[in-house]
Amino acid sequence: MRGVKFEVVAECPETRARAGLLHTPHGVIETPVFMPVGTQATVKGLSERDLDEDLGARILLANTYHLYIRPGHELIRKLGGLHRFMAWKNAILTDSGGFQVFSLSGLRKISEHGVVFQSHLDGSPHQFTPQSTVDVQLALGSDILMALDECPEYPVSHEYARESMQRTVRWARQADEHFRKRMEGSKTGHALFPIVQGSMFPDLRRECAQALVELDADGYAVGGLSVGEPRPLSLEMVEATEQILPSDRPRYAMGVGMPAELAEYVARGIDMMDCVLPSRNARNGYLFTSAGRIIIKHARYRDDERPIDEKCKCYTCTRYSRAYLRHLFQSGEILYAVLATRHNIRRYLDIMHGIRRAIIANSFADYLRCVRQASAEEAG
Amino acid sequence: MRGVKFEVVAECPETRARAGLLHTPHGVIETPVFMPVGTQATVKGLSERDLDEDLGARILLANTYHLYIRPGHELIRKLGGLHRFMAWKNAILTDSGGFQVFSLSGLRKISEHGVVFQSHLDGSPHQFTPQSTVDVQLALGSDILMALDECPEYPVSHEYARESMQRTVRWARQADEHFRKRMEGSKTGHALFPIVQGSMFPDLRRECAQALVELDADGYAVGGLSVGEPRPLSLEMVEATEQILPSDRPRYAMGVGMPAELAEYVARGIDMMDCVLPSRNARNGYLFTSAGRIIIKHARYRDDERPIDEKCKCYTCTRYSRAYLRHLFQSGEILYAVLATRHNIRRYLDIMHGIRRAIIANSFADYLRCVRQASAEEAG
Repeated sequence: MRGVKFEVVAECPETRARAGLLHTPHGVIETPVFMPVGTQATVKGLSERDLDEDLGARILLANTYHLYIRPGHELIRKLGGLHRFMAWKNAILTDSGGFQVFSLSGLRKISEHGVVFQSHLDGSPHQFTPQSTVDVQLALGSDILMALDECPEYPVSHEYARESMQRTVRWARQADEHFRKRMEGSKTGHALFPIVQGSMFPDLRRECAQALVELDADGYAVGGLSVGEPRPLSLEMVEATEQILPSDRPRYAMGVGMPAELAEYVARGIDMMDCVLPSRNARNGYLFTSAGRIIIKHARYRDDERPIDEKCKCYTCTRYSRAYLRHLFQSGEILYAVLATRHNIRRYLDIMHGIRRAIIANSFADYLRCVRQASAEEAG
Repeated sequence: MRGVKFEVVAECPETRARAGLLHTPHGVIETPVFMPVGTQATVKGLSERDLDEDLGARILLANTYHLYIRPGHELIRKLGGLHRFMAWKNAILTDSGGFQVFSLSGLRKISEHGVVFQSHLDGSPHQFTPQSTVDVQLALGSDILMALDECPEYPVSHEYARESMQRTVRWARQADEHFRKRMEGSKTGHALFPIVQGSMFPDLRRECAQALVELDADGYAVGGLSVGEPRPLSLEMVEATEQILPSDRPRYAMGVGMPAELAEYVARGIDMMDCVLPSRNARNGYLFTSAGRIIIKHARYRDDERPIDEKCKCYTCTRYSRAYLRHLFQSGEILYAVLATRHNIRRYLDIMHGIRRAIIANSFADYLRCVRQASAEEAG
């Protein structure tokens, strides 16, 4: 049994964009989809009702590393899994933990068997192996698991990138083998996506994708992006990879991107994305609107009675003014983060809905041109 | 025209408790009522929908001092008043600012004309007079204003307490006179409550109440409580005051109290209360339940699947476990404060509903005995 089933419902004739339906054990997800990030079993500041009923989010991402460290996957398993723990009835994707091990944790040592690292909270020693991260994610009860990968920093040499990528492929094979064993006789459906690495070298990305395709996985992720590289390189890596990945499986670009970039990834065949930007920027006072970015602390918003975005239908925009949000921000009020996050995530979801509608209406190429023009004007 | 109209609908034959209806320009409020505190134009972490629809709050308290300092009452007036600014359609009571001037601000100097003080934010100099605080509260558009008072620290000498109380009475007369002038020809209804002071001296409390009753105000507050005195003294001061205050006007005990004390104040004729305890304690990890207090960080809640309070119908309790809340608290997550505040305020409002039902059902004396017994058992 496949853990998730992907169905392409429309394709753009000019780009690689497609609209689809991703069937998971916790509901059907319209793609392309943006997944809000719920790092520690919570999208910061938002309740399940805010996310489900108000924002219409159908899938969240949670961080395996963070939940493994605190409160621990065994506790979450004991409490009925992550869905029950965080009262989330829709789908959950968990990352492999690899990215956090390489970006957050203290001393770490990579070997053929996995990675030994120190907790960023208390320095305690831990090990992730391709098998153990599958076990952790199954304990969490994730719908879509990620295979352990090494996420090299940027830049690295071609030599190191090749060595690292080949290890990631071997890890993916081990994770896949372990996952299939664990799934034998399992009553609940889960999917495991391997992650394409290869730093910023198109040949390595292609080699990696070719090797991973042999696993016949339910979906594929493109990782190692947003690690400090220039933005055109990220898109180039997706292009190098995408044509090799099977078109009947979902493709997930990890950790991207800015609002204007979402359509660029979709145009390159990406179906799923996640990013902390909408929530983190919200908390830092950066609000995304259909007319560009707002920095809420600016004095010009002091007496601005308009909502953040006059075209937005989110709870925040239907109730509150920029002036009120600025006051809350300046006062360090919790409600600011709550309302701002609600808006920014809605903005991302609205963009994805617009993209999907355009693909289905056969007008995505026009949509993309408009986004590029608006983006150029804002930059200019 | 009276700004608010009070209607007694039931009285306890054994105590001074009564149930009433307080008619305000922004809705009818069932009393006894607990007013959640929205210091800076927000009950920390809660949206207007959380407060109105989920919690059923019909009146909030906002702090004149804080809003005067930031963002400024003139800005709020320009933006259509506090109701519109914070998107709150129900009633608002504002305090006089006096308590904050005496507890928060830097160097301050009291004179016959008012109090000169420094902002706690930037040290800038300001003055509150009996007239100016009425003007500030009218700029905010408050339904129920408080007259400027001096809130002496505890303990003070009888001599100082008398001097201070007499000044508070003179200020209340000036505030009342100014308020009545401002109300001439006003199209919107507002009420001004004077505040009974007198430190912990029953004779001064009585003298103050007698003088203030002459103002024929829409309601009366008992201030200067919860300033560090032993709890029995606070109740004694209310007792000394209450019998002098007119029974057809609402009586408001400012800044009280713990859950088990609410019924004690009601038993002494109090109709309105406010306190930061439910919201502040929530943020600090102290949760109130029908079976006593929970300190959520305790290890015993690590794998506790039960809601905070199995008898509670609040959003938090219908969705989330103690284990999840403990995880959010330990992780410093914003959502913890949001969910915990929602529960604790609901607990206070539920207590008040229970008290009101008991008064109407003619069983308040029994209710009070049960509260006292449970409280004694918890303490023992």
